[in-house]
Amino acid sequence: MSGVGFVEPAAEPHPAVLAGGAALLRPLLEAALAALEDGVARRGGPVPSGEPGELAELVRATLGEALPATGTGAVAALEQLTRLLAYGSADPADPACAAHLHCPPLAVAVAAEMAAAALNPSLDSWDQAPAATALEDEVVRGLAGLVGFDPDRAAGVVTCGGTESNLMGLLLARDAAVRRETGLDPALEGLPVVACRLRVYASEAAHFSVQRNAALLGLGETAVVPVPVDARHRMDPAALERALDTGGGVSMAIVATAGTTDFGSVDPLPEIADLARRHGAWLHVDAAYGGGALFSSRLAGLLDGIAAADSVALDLHKLGWQPVAAGVFLAREAAAMAPLARRVAYLNPADDEAAGYVSLLGRSLRTTRRADVFKIAVTLRALGREGLGRLVDACHDLARHAADRIAAHPRLELAAEPVLTTVVFRYLPTTGDPDRVNAALRRRLLRAGRAVVGRTELGGAEPGGRVRLKLTLLNPHATRADVDALLAAVVAAGVEEDR
Amino acid sequence: MSGVGFVEPAAEPHPAVLAGGAALLRPLLEAALAALEDGVARRGGPVPSGEPGELAELVRATLGEALPATGTGAVAALEQLTRLLAYGSADPADPACAAHLHCPPLAVAVAAEMAAAALNPSLDSWDQAPAATALEDEVVRGLAGLVGFDPDRAAGVVTCGGTESNLMGLLLARDAAVRRETGLDPALEGLPVVACRLRVYASEAAHFSVQRNAALLGLGETAVVPVPVDARHRMDPAALERALDTGGGVSMAIVATAGTTDFGSVDPLPEIADLARRHGAWLHVDAAYGGGALFSSRLAGLLDGIAAADSVALDLHKLGWQPVAAGVFLAREAAAMAPLARRVAYLNPADDEAAGYVSLLGRSLRTTRRADVFKIAVTLRALGREGLGRLVDACHDLARHAADRIAAHPRLELAAEPVLTTVVFRYLPTTGDPDRVNAALRRRLLRAGRAVVGRTELGGAEPGGRVRLKLTLLNPHATRADVDALLAAVVAAGVEEDR
Repeated sequence: MSGVGFVEPAAEPHPAVLAGGAALLRPLLEAALAALEDGVARRGGPVPSGEPGELAELVRATLGEALPATGTGAVAALEQLTRLLAYGSADPADPACAAHLHCPPLAVAVAAEMAAAALNPSLDSWDQAPAATALEDEVVRGLAGLVGFDPDRAAGVVTCGGTESNLMGLLLARDAAVRRETGLDPALEGLPVVACRLRVYASEAAHFSVQRNAALLGLGETAVVPVPVDARHRMDPAALERALDTGGGVSMAIVATAGTTDFGSVDPLPEIADLARRHGAWLHVDAAYGGGALFSSRLAGLLDGIAAADSVALDLHKLGWQPVAAGVFLAREAAAMAPLARRVAYLNPADDEAAGYVSLLGRSLRTTRRADVFKIAVTLRALGREGLGRLVDACHDLARHAADRIAAHPRLELAAEPVLTTVVFRYLPTTGDPDRVNAALRRRLLRAGRAVVGRTELGGAEPGGRVRLKLTLLNPHATRADVDALLAAVVAAGVEEDR
Repeated sequence: MSGVGFVEPAAEPHPAVLAGGAALLRPLLEAALAALEDGVARRGGPVPSGEPGELAELVRATLGEALPATGTGAVAALEQLTRLLAYGSADPADPACAAHLHCPPLAVAVAAEMAAAALNPSLDSWDQAPAATALEDEVVRGLAGLVGFDPDRAAGVVTCGGTESNLMGLLLARDAAVRRETGLDPALEGLPVVACRLRVYASEAAHFSVQRNAALLGLGETAVVPVPVDARHRMDPAALERALDTGGGVSMAIVATAGTTDFGSVDPLPEIADLARRHGAWLHVDAAYGGGALFSSRLAGLLDGIAAADSVALDLHKLGWQPVAAGVFLAREAAAMAPLARRVAYLNPADDEAAGYVSLLGRSLRTTRRADVFKIAVTLRALGREGLGRLVDACHDLARHAADRIAAHPRLELAAEPVLTTVVFRYLPTTGDPDRVNAALRRRLLRAGRAVVGRTELGGAEPGGRVRLKLTLLNPHATRADVDALLAAVVAAGVEEDR
């Protein structure tokens, strides 16, 4: 019989191989579940207590050699390392784990991930992923519609995350600008001298991957012109206009952010789109975080204007509750992605494509590519836009509650009203240096295994100190009482450090 | 209680959210397993029969809207789409699915994938992945040792696959060459004019991602100088030397291939390493496929010389039987990866790192990054080097058997003796055009749901036709009888097309 997509070594000491079906996978999944429960119970909190070096030592001691000559057998290895991973995780399902855009995944998405892993489709050719190829097209259409693109004109691809999606946007922008300015194809010829004059405009609060990707693309980080932000950490359109007018060079792209990592701020998209159009610059909207607001009827209006973007980054492993990775890159016009197309004899020969065996190879920068689309498809179908919107709203409510509590607390200082689901604040020490105390109290909470709180730094001159704490509230099941307890723990740790 | 890493919407029509533990995941996994079995049974072969358009229509009809306003609930969505995916997969666990480097995954790795998805660590900061961070270090050490690097000096990272690993190698090579030639930091300044003169040498049989990545990096595909191969599809060192001597420009990198996609050929690594050293070029070895031979005591000698590489790409989703993705990038000297380091206030502030909260952010081009290392760690521990080597040898034996049968068959023509686990050949029609007949017989087998056979094209002038068929034998559980049946199906389809 045809298997369900996996082979299995028999028990030690000489692993043989048995093709098998669900009957073979079931006991291994059960072993993993039991080890998960055991590891979580041993942890007993959001993160293991102790110094980081102690945990690393435990990992080394448990593992011995990572690649031993002979194996221990499947069940023993799975149980031992799953218990270790569960114990040694910062667990986003615990309400006291609220540092990053690091969500507790939906159980249905985890189960879907398992199914996709068992079947192991790869989206670089039709004959490695017949159904998944068609499924990705449909999911991209659905998400294109969500951002307001015309699904019949748009195109897109599932990515590793916002960083890869932002890279794709900048790559398409770079090559379009070079072709326009020189008539040359940069994919073939490389960057001509004009590339030294390509400029990318992004706000000071944009994600660091904009700079990083500019370096990767050969533009250099200095090609990115940081545009000042307003008091609410949003790109200032007047400042952008001045920068575009005086920046010199070729205005290659504007990267607007819909949901900054720290404050959740959304740049003024309509004004930026207007400037992009007037200056002939590609508009990429990094909505890796804020894109999730589109699920919520209450918050979707924050992203008005996103449909004018040339390209958009979404991350469903943030406000979409997917296990990593579930990034999405969308282009308003499918034609804009055409330069990514590649013809490869072993993957997408022309006569096969003519016969209907379509390939997504030319949509992605990767070759082998897992079907992350599957868990996304299952989740969208299971919850619908309303169901996801309800989760977004719940997290937004938690953030507003946290902000109220912080504003009301004499020893806490709120940095800004929450926009999406983050709250930036700090503990106000009575005597100690605020930056030192806040950094130290966060590590104290980690060491105690008590809480995982985020931290960041404000930009610009901050005479009173730049370090801030951050709650990124992505657990829609957390309660207000959980948030209160978390803030109480922060204050208690602050008191300990403020001596 | 602290959960096991996921939240779950309750049943329709209004999905609420319940945090939960394994008790919540267990019934969903069981539902997915049952749907997997059902879908596989409905498929009844390695791939669904019919035209590709029919399958796409089935996907669209099943899905309706990919993003409906209201959801169907978790179980219904999971069952329906898992059944669809299982039915519509090209199943590498079926011995008649043998087209690509697309392996049937180990059941233990699938179970590990589920556990990692449930806990959802992300490797861009310590406080999203405490144990996984330490685990990746250990696995990288183990694999560095496998390729002959000094684990105390080497460094590396888990990637999406060979394409990303090759990109990292070329990026490090590019920036090292620019710094050496100009004293400038290209990550900051972008590519200066010298970049127009950077040359990458790779054999004509190297993976197309070398060109693709050169385009991404701003070098252009024409920066890649194709070096002729010998009769066994290996880079010819004499031709490489001539190319280096006459290529002009700056010899930025040589990409040697250890296991080409079609023939499994391994370039002569010692001679190439010697030339790289003499010309001051970075040596990157693309061992995405052939790296698996290092597990086999019988085949490991093929890769002698790999330890002289500056960087290496491995893919454990090929000869490592992992679900995608399980790529690995290794650098012989950790210092070579230092330019990738980034300091980001919200991820790896300096005082946290000084306190032991190490971050792998600077090892990867990604930010959010799933713990693909976990399934790799579990697999290495479960099977050990010997266990994996036995799987490699079994597939190698199958390839040799296939080659013998092909050589002995009057209507089949063997293109080359197998090196690893692929066999390239074709059907010899009596009257029809060989290229047309071979392409058509492959599609005939797909349409019939009978077999998934690979195809490729020989380089250079081939008066008798360039199209070839390919078996990529990655199912260690397949038997010689399975291979015989697959070849018989090829011949039967050839007869049908040869009319």
